[in-house]
Amino acid sequence: MEGYKSFLFFLVSALVLGFTLVIFVLVWVLDYSDGLAWDGGNAEFNWHPVLIITGFIFIEGIAIIVYRLPWTWKCSKLLMKCIHAGLHLTATTLVVVALVAVFEYHNAKHIPNLYSLHSWVGLTVVILFVLQLFVSIIVYLLPITPVSIRAAFMSIHVYGGLLLFGCIMGTALMGLTEKLIFSLRKPAYSSFPPEGIFVNTLGLLIIVFGGLILWIATRPGWKRPPEHVEKDQHPLGSEVDDVSTTDYSKNKSDVELNSEARKRNLTLDEAGQRSTM
Amino acid sequence: MEGYKSFLFFLVSALVLGFTLVIFVLVWVLDYSDGLAWDGGNAEFNWHPVLIITGFIFIEGIAIIVYRLPWTWKCSKLLMKCIHAGLHLTATTLVVVALVAVFEYHNAKHIPNLYSLHSWVGLTVVILFVLQLFVSIIVYLLPITPVSIRAAFMSIHVYGGLLLFGCIMGTALMGLTEKLIFSLRKPAYSSFPPEGIFVNTLGLLIIVFGGLILWIATRPGWKRPPEHVEKDQHPLGSEVDDVSTTDYSKNKSDVELNSEARKRNLTLDEAGQRSTM
Repeated sequence: MEGYKSFLFFLVSALVLGFTLVIFVLVWVLDYSDGLAWDGGNAEFNWHPVLIITGFIFIEGIAIIVYRLPWTWKCSKLLMKCIHAGLHLTATTLVVVALVAVFEYHNAKHIPNLYSLHSWVGLTVVILFVLQLFVSIIVYLLPITPVSIRAAFMSIHVYGGLLLFGCIMGTALMGLTEKLIFSLRKPAYSSFPPEGIFVNTLGLLIIVFGGLILWIATRPGWKRPPEHVEKDQHPLGSEVDDVSTTDYSKNKSDVELNSEARKRNLTLDEAGQRSTM
Repeated sequence: MEGYKSFLFFLVSALVLGFTLVIFVLVWVLDYSDGLAWDGGNAEFNWHPVLIITGFIFIEGIAIIVYRLPWTWKCSKLLMKCIHAGLHLTATTLVVVALVAVFEYHNAKHIPNLYSLHSWVGLTVVILFVLQLFVSIIVYLLPITPVSIRAAFMSIHVYGGLLLFGCIMGTALMGLTEKLIFSLRKPAYSSFPPEGIFVNTLGLLIIVFGGLILWIATRPGWKRPPEHVEKDQHPLGSEVDDVSTTDYSKNKSDVELNSEARKRNLTLDEAGQRSTM
């Protein structure tokens, strides 16, 4: 991997920050709010930010960059796909519980559901996320999908994943804003109470975490190299091989060609960026 | 340009949606709110969403994709850089007025400044945006900057620009959320008043517009091709040439090599994406 030290720096920063987010949200609900319970009250609502930040931000962030870890490049592609999908499924499970918590809280308190921009964007993001997960499992994990469809869907899969991750950040920031305005009355949010400053800081840290994940995910030099994919033959046979293996696993000379071409690819990718500025 | 019809579809959609955003925010402040004025009241505050959505979202979105317009590829790089920077400067000017409007409104109404997450993120984004603009003008428009620095800064310039654009979206969504909660009292936001539904829709459209801009900006096949850059010699001489021209304008064979390599670059870029999934 080129820029290995830089990659390590960003990865460690993202992990430290990810854990910090989880600690921050736990401190918020346990120290500043009414703790955690499943009782229809504030303590049940509190599961919402805890599970969203843990599942939809931290775990989802790790799911996005899991292919970038160079130590996994010797693992089979199928194993990595399963880990990638498994992390998304874990995130989805936590998000569903988070949604149940907030709906139950609203119903118990007779607060209308789905009136706010936060809820509109949030529900849209969750539906699209589950749709993307469902389609991606069919396209990339089931051996019945033609290679042409896998290839055609890839740019949408990658772009959609990153865009949804960005939307999750935006939705979380709206959620924090709503909660602070509604819950901080005496003293009011506008009088700079410790809880307001603490949760504002949490919001800023969420953005920094998202920025680190997106930086790691979009560096061309940190992608899982195609030549490693060569070794990964799909267990169900060549007809259902991964797109990458189908395109690039013909013979040794192809591997060398790809290795050389990849270097040029990286150089030219930079050139492409330059050409736009 | 490959996928020209698809590009046109996304460009026209983005333009139509961009104008729709401006119309929506104008209808909001003129029909649902107290109009526009500079009187320290609600009508002065209303300049804030109008100028942010017009400048920091619509014009900034166009600034991001201006290099992607294939009709501009025959124009000199320097001209396009000036248009790119000019659009950013226009956006910055509108944003500064938008900030003045909200600070004056707060001061007139004795509302504290900078207590909310919206204001923390918003001010941070504006400061970083101005910093990025200032550094980018020095690096890419002043002829004194060494080519090595231009090249080293490019990935940060592109990534920073797109990340800030995403943060602008998130900040705008928080701003809409705040404003609706504060201003919708009778009937309350939670009772689904027409203004709430209208502004929620505006929020969703902002996200779709941002998604279109980011899609256009990140398609490798829609980048301004390096071979066009060959023809663009910096008017101040070869020593201060653009990074692209320095790297790729040696001779005709290089041009052909780059053209062929660019095609492979695109193919391999897709492969790189595939390799991650």
